[in-house]
Amino acid sequence: MDDRTGHRIVPDTPRRADRLPGNRYGNRPTMKDVAARAGVGLKTVSRVVNGEPGVTPETERRVQEAIDALGFRRNDSARVLRKGRTASIGLVLEDLADPFYGPLSRAVEEVARAHGALLINGSSAEDPDREQELVLALCARRVDGLVVIPAGDDHRYLEPELKAGVATVFVDRPAGQIDADVVVSDNFGGARDGVAHLIAHGHRRIGFIGDMPRIHTAAERLRGYRAAMEDAGIPVKDSWMSLGVTDPVRVRRAAEQMLTDPHPVTAIFTGNNRVTVTVIRVLAEHARGVALVGFDDIELADLLQPGVTVVAQDAAALGRTAAERLFRQLDGSLIAPDRIELPTRLVTRGSGELPPAD
Amino acid sequence: MDDRTGHRIVPDTPRRADRLPGNRYGNRPTMKDVAARAGVGLKTVSRVVNGEPGVTPETERRVQEAIDALGFRRNDSARVLRKGRTASIGLVLEDLADPFYGPLSRAVEEVARAHGALLINGSSAEDPDREQELVLALCARRVDGLVVIPAGDDHRYLEPELKAGVATVFVDRPAGQIDADVVVSDNFGGARDGVAHLIAHGHRRIGFIGDMPRIHTAAERLRGYRAAMEDAGIPVKDSWMSLGVTDPVRVRRAAEQMLTDPHPVTAIFTGNNRVTVTVIRVLAEHARGVALVGFDDIELADLLQPGVTVVAQDAAALGRTAAERLFRQLDGSLIAPDRIELPTRLVTRGSGELPPAD
Repeated sequence: MDDRTGHRIVPDTPRRADRLPGNRYGNRPTMKDVAARAGVGLKTVSRVVNGEPGVTPETERRVQEAIDALGFRRNDSARVLRKGRTASIGLVLEDLADPFYGPLSRAVEEVARAHGALLINGSSAEDPDREQELVLALCARRVDGLVVIPAGDDHRYLEPELKAGVATVFVDRPAGQIDADVVVSDNFGGARDGVAHLIAHGHRRIGFIGDMPRIHTAAERLRGYRAAMEDAGIPVKDSWMSLGVTDPVRVRRAAEQMLTDPHPVTAIFTGNNRVTVTVIRVLAEHARGVALVGFDDIELADLLQPGVTVVAQDAAALGRTAAERLFRQLDGSLIAPDRIELPTRLVTRGSGELPPAD
Repeated sequence: MDDRTGHRIVPDTPRRADRLPGNRYGNRPTMKDVAARAGVGLKTVSRVVNGEPGVTPETERRVQEAIDALGFRRNDSARVLRKGRTASIGLVLEDLADPFYGPLSRAVEEVARAHGALLINGSSAEDPDREQELVLALCARRVDGLVVIPAGDDHRYLEPELKAGVATVFVDRPAGQIDADVVVSDNFGGARDGVAHLIAHGHRRIGFIGDMPRIHTAAERLRGYRAAMEDAGIPVKDSWMSLGVTDPVRVRRAAEQMLTDPHPVTAIFTGNNRVTVTVIRVLAEHARGVALVGFDDIELADLLQPGVTVVAQDAAALGRTAAERLFRQLDGSLIAPDRIELPTRLVTRGSGELPPAD
């Protein structure tokens, strides 16, 4: 399979999926059919199928007879259970409310579901301690694997879990101080291309407003901005770069400072979708036309005047690729950790093609 | 302990635990007993038990005396906690990628965290079977409580869990066939006000494009549309109403049909944010100015030309209110299931104030 596109699911996925309980992809008997035939509740069948306690031997026998009679396939889950699997995986996000993580979460859930696994989500709110607490709480609940968007930069706390066989894939940002599977976007290249696009349209005084530099993606995108400016032989002023929290007040102040400078910027590159949305508002109130390219696509960006030119990540592909690697780890078909980088895409809509105002 | 800040999580947890809903099924004195003996209302007892303001010292003394006399004990509960609290709650969403659920999820997680509980998420993808499977899987993982945005309309499968003491609050849509806590927006009133707003601006041929009518919110908003039209004495044509899945292809076709009718609609009311986004695109390509009011606010709606007038729900308040009720069930301070309706807010930005084109 080509991990860079994630288009092809691991070869055994369809075969595994249609043998798993709860599968709804074919005409095979479901747990509801088993429950109806055995004259028990769905929960009881679920307990038997998943080897959970709380079922009398007699009831278990009735359920097993129904399973056999209907040909409900439980071989895989039984084998998984013998291997001590719980058919659940954890996803640790940074912020449940950030629209960027919506498609990523859904993609992870769809892959998990295709493998008959439950997805358990939580968010770290960009707090490394909270990330560790959440990750270990999920491990304590015996998830088979973890997809982690890390807030911290030291993940040695995970080493015992990795040794214990918990599959782990880091996505969007790399793991810190441990050797782990990583799926990221080309944050450096995407930012460099976006800034080079502004330079190609005549801009030299270009501002960069991004997230806190301790965050890998923010640092990589800043590095891309610096590289593009350096490639064009443009010395960067400190006053052109503003990194910090992405709350609207901080971002608005940063943008207004760049725009009211004696030598104001003629273009701004924004480091993520949260920053872009605030800068769009500032520019909408601003008389002089200022060019804008934003990292991350945003809904309705094409309907604004001008349309917002962005460097788009494929959030769904990040989630899908990470989740597929996770299940390949669980299959034992992945030997060594790898780093997978997905390309970004420059989408030109008008704001990034405005010429310098002066 | 202040449930809102949850600052005293550790010392509070044991005290909280002996007021499990399970106690309602046992012989322990309840707050109802305390209220009767103290000669005050349940709300007053609840305030005292939760350390909430609004109780005179004299009343608090009477309630405390009743608590002591009846042995409404808070001390022997660590045992109960050790018996089975997992300090985790489940949240069952409809779609992880719908931006409406982002602030709702985050609000639930913040309340859970304030109570020292882990939040476990999953989505039903609008499939009732999947909702039940997910809910039971979460119960099998022994969550203390569930916040459910239901996809189905029959939740009797939850009755054993409720009897077992699993706290449950339904949000956004009501529970079906069981008596449960429900927190919803005023979908009927909000839609009626939005359509009345279009009528007040001179429109009579007003289209409604909404989600599948089996979904409670979609049905309520359609009812609000009909009520506003009826209040204005405007007979509604069938061709003005289109309900179905919210995917862009279906919605675009519905909007284009209404706009190309020999007697086209001069305004459209959209039933949710997914529908609104597609209709905005259709209207942007459309020559004649057509008024639009959408249910649910959408990001950047104020920056479009014209700005999009919406009936805004407070998604965060829905999540926060539901989660706070869940933890009040767990601490025993909620006696009977209730239905809480949060108001919506009409936000006028231009698209809903356009006059009829003809």
